[in-house]
Amino acid sequence: MQFTAAQIAMMINGQLEGDATVSVGNFGKIEEATTGDLAFLANPKYEDYLYTTKASIVIVNNTLELKQPVSATLLRVPDAYAAFAALLSKYQDIVAQQLNGVQQPSYIASSAKLGEHIYIGAFAYIGEQVTIGNHVKIYPGAFIGNNVSIADHCTIYPGVKIYHDCIIGSHVTIHAGSVIGGDGFGFAPMPDGTFKKIPQIGNVILEDYVEIGANATIDRATMGSTIVKQGAKLDNLIQVGHNAEIGSNTVVAAQAGVSGSTKIGSNVMIGGQAGIVGHITIADGSRINAQSGVSKSIKQPNTTVTGSPAYDFTATLRSQALSRNLPSFEKRITELEKLIQQLLAEKVAS
Amino acid sequence: MQFTAAQIAMMINGQLEGDATVSVGNFGKIEEATTGDLAFLANPKYEDYLYTTKASIVIVNNTLELKQPVSATLLRVPDAYAAFAALLSKYQDIVAQQLNGVQQPSYIASSAKLGEHIYIGAFAYIGEQVTIGNHVKIYPGAFIGNNVSIADHCTIYPGVKIYHDCIIGSHVTIHAGSVIGGDGFGFAPMPDGTFKKIPQIGNVILEDYVEIGANATIDRATMGSTIVKQGAKLDNLIQVGHNAEIGSNTVVAAQAGVSGSTKIGSNVMIGGQAGIVGHITIADGSRINAQSGVSKSIKQPNTTVTGSPAYDFTATLRSQALSRNLPSFEKRITELEKLIQQLLAEKVAS
Amino acid sequence: MQFTAAQIAMMINGQLEGDATVSVGNFGKIEEATTGDLAFLANPKYEDYLYTTKASIVIVNNTLELKQPVSATLLRVPDAYAAFAALLSKYQDIVAQQLNGVQQPSYIASSAKLGEHIYIGAFAYIGEQVTIGNHVKIYPGAFIGNNVSIADHCTIYPGVKIYHDCIIGSHVTIHAGSVIGGDGFGFAPMPDGTFKKIPQIGNVILEDYVEIGANATIDRATMGSTIVKQGAKLDNLIQVGHNAEIGSNTVVAAQAGVSGSTKIGSNVMIGGQAGIVGHITIADGSRINAQSGVSKSIKQPNTTVTGSPAYDFTATLRSQALSRNLPSFEKRITELEKLIQQLLAEKVAS
Repeated sequence: MQFTAAQIAMMINGQLEGDATVSVGNFGKIEEATTGDLAFLANPKYEDYLYTTKASIVIVNNTLELKQPVSATLLRVPDAYAAFAALLSKYQDIVAQQLNGVQQPSYIASSAKLGEHIYIGAFAYIGEQVTIGNHVKIYPGAFIGNNVSIADHCTIYPGVKIYHDCIIGSHVTIHAGSVIGGDGFGFAPMPDGTFKKIPQIGNVILEDYVEIGANATIDRATMGSTIVKQGAKLDNLIQVGHNAEIGSNTVVAAQAGVSGSTKIGSNVMIGGQAGIVGHITIADGSRINAQSGVSKSIKQPNTTVTGSPAYDFTATLRSQALSRNLPSFEKRITELEKLIQQLLAEKVAS
Repeated sequence: MQFTAAQIAMMINGQLEGDATVSVGNFGKIEEATTGDLAFLANPKYEDYLYTTKASIVIVNNTLELKQPVSATLLRVPDAYAAFAALLSKYQDIVAQQLNGVQQPSYIASSAKLGEHIYIGAFAYIGEQVTIGNHVKIYPGAFIGNNVSIADHCTIYPGVKIYHDCIIGSHVTIHAGSVIGGDGFGFAPMPDGTFKKIPQIGNVILEDYVEIGANATIDRATMGSTIVKQGAKLDNLIQVGHNAEIGSNTVVAAQAGVSGSTKIGSNVMIGGQAGIVGHITIADGSRINAQSGVSKSIKQPNTTVTGSPAYDFTATLRSQALSRNLPSFEKRITELEKLIQQLLAEKVAS
Repeated sequence: MQFTAAQIAMMINGQLEGDATVSVGNFGKIEEATTGDLAFLANPKYEDYLYTTKASIVIVNNTLELKQPVSATLLRVPDAYAAFAALLSKYQDIVAQQLNGVQQPSYIASSAKLGEHIYIGAFAYIGEQVTIGNHVKIYPGAFIGNNVSIADHCTIYPGVKIYHDCIIGSHVTIHAGSVIGGDGFGFAPMPDGTFKKIPQIGNVILEDYVEIGANATIDRATMGSTIVKQGAKLDNLIQVGHNAEIGSNTVVAAQAGVSGSTKIGSNVMIGGQAGIVGHITIADGSRINAQSGVSKSIKQPNTTVTGSPAYDFTATLRSQALSRNLPSFEKRITELEKLIQQLLAEKVAS
């Protein structure tokens, strides 16, 4: 798609300086952009690039005073970054709206109920009794198990698998390859050392505005539901165990894991590769640093922990620093022992 | 599916109290169940819910003495939890048996041999010379490479990929998105700093009753086989390197990794996010705690280790506790140094 | 495929001893091989197996002197291992060449441009404006998004998903289930505690000779490109964040993660389950041990670090060893305190 400077000026309510007919089809960073690109300048430290950029159009702040002539067409707005971001969102909406209809071959059970303005890609599988809302996009090769419901405005990327009976709220995004509702890891030990599977008959509920990264796994509950609450954002390759709860607006970075039955509060931040044991509670607003291993409940809201096992952040930093001083500690202790022995020897001698 | 209280009483050999004609179609927790649900009461601490539950049928222990009237139909058995679990298994078997036949479109090579009573979902791919046993379920979008064999009663969930030549025992379950038999990570360093791939021509063998979670990866051997032995249970997102062996009835929690050529014994428990280096041996019955990093063989059976690098559990706990005391250690050493200096100064002065 | 000893002797330029007409169809380890297998003997410590092996053909070093009669046909070459490895590569090339043509059903957009001698498996999806080079193999169920380009001699295994606009160099291999170009994890915090998605409009570039393991995730850049440079090898389940760069010939072991905007130099080795925070730089030739957590840039080339947080390898090993001595440290400090108190008490008394 191509847009002229005049068209974009209207979209973002910007003041146009330069050629109104020049057109762009791509976005670029001001330092890397080429002809036909739209860029922006928000941070004054990049201003030099404005005079050398090959971008055709640059969005700038109203307050900018030019020090040299500029070849690009300028669009002046109160906040260049915000205007650029809004434009990106609008652009992505336009692209997304172009995706619609049902590609063939796909498999849609006759009992499935489909909303309006949806896209179902080739090789997607829609099981029995599935309900799909309006404006939902299901990319190629996704698997939607029996009796799943997906509310309006969701995007299910290629190869996502949602097992039977799971419930997906509105405006949910699930990236490629993630598995929602696989069996929880529940096995009862038998007297002969083998394990007997405990049936996992619950489901997973993803509430509205949840986003899940690629190749993540969220297990179904043994009974009841594993729940990811409204607005939570989970990154790639994360694991959420059966019957766990992730609070609203909580953010979980890549490769972190939450074990079964643990309840994470709201507005918690969990760093990459962190792990949280099962059956504990993490208070609202907690911050769990990357690679931490949390083995006990965090009861005080807004606590920051770090380390494995995880403890209070500041204390742990001090201990970690001292732990690198251990060689000097040992030297000081040995020296003290020598001095004491001297004193004792002299006392005996005297 | 709907079952009446009378039908369920027969299935679990229970003694019926109340309306025998009431019917249920779902399972629920006693505290959350609604009309049409079947629940159970095993733990006396939940007894209060029995008098308020909306469940239509509740399975209870023979020994229960009612303190108030109950609206649900009761089914009395010697062990309510065991009866409930048995019912769940039976129910899942019934559901599973409904899955059968070959959905279209699917791709089945003409040289593949298919057993009886199987299910092959839409978009599943069955390669040349593949052998599939009886009662096997292959969900939509699974990929079964050339010359793979899958024995009876296996369940291969959506989007599982099994590379060529792998051997899957009977009663094996593989959850969605897992990759069995990808190339081992083997590259020979060249003098110019590049790496040359070492061909990986072995396979993976999953023995009977193995269960693999979602999005796990088990690499094929360079030569010979990577083996997961009978009854081992591996959770989501785990990694098993080339030529590794996982012993029978060993349990590996989510996001753990076992490097190439390492042999894990039987009945070992490996915690979440633990990592085990290559070319070592872990004795039977060992317990490797979550997030541990095991860098040396464990030769003594039933050893518990923790930490990264991993050491004996009790000693590590003590060191970790003391490590949080390091600030007080430093204070005590500094105090001792001051006192010694005083004593020495006085001695010189005297 | 079957090859006679005479045919293989020609392929590897070997000197034949024994029956030239015996034929083999498989490779095997000398200690496990059976009739119809080809094995090799390079390491003298396995020589005993030569006299008992059931392999039909064994490749041996020219210098080998037989101590007993051998039933297998021998092929003598200057370097038995090198000849065997060359044969494996040749064999895999032959197998790979048998894969060609377009299986049905598959989905190929009419605007896609396909090279020659390609294989496209059933249920593969090739989007609009996709360009695919010569000798490319795309296995069943792979998803190639709009405007992706894939250069010559690439292998894309089953169920790989490549999002729109990504660029794949030549001789690239991507194993099953990996996701290339999913959205970077970028969300702006709003005053009400919710998060607003930052559009991710960049792409991923995989340069020539890159290999990516199974179920890995490499996120697209917010703007610009996430880049994996020539010859880098990434293992299973690894995570690369948006706008990160992985240098040429760098090796990343399984389950490691590189956060957004971090630049990894060339010839770096990153161990399994290691994590690297965002916005830092790792110098060429660095070695990051398994499970390390790197929180600061590494500026000195060829540095080895370990631990979480990661520090210089040798110093960390010393601290870790001393940390296990903490119980004895405490004992020594307590003993010193007792002695000092005695001395002070005596001084007062005297």
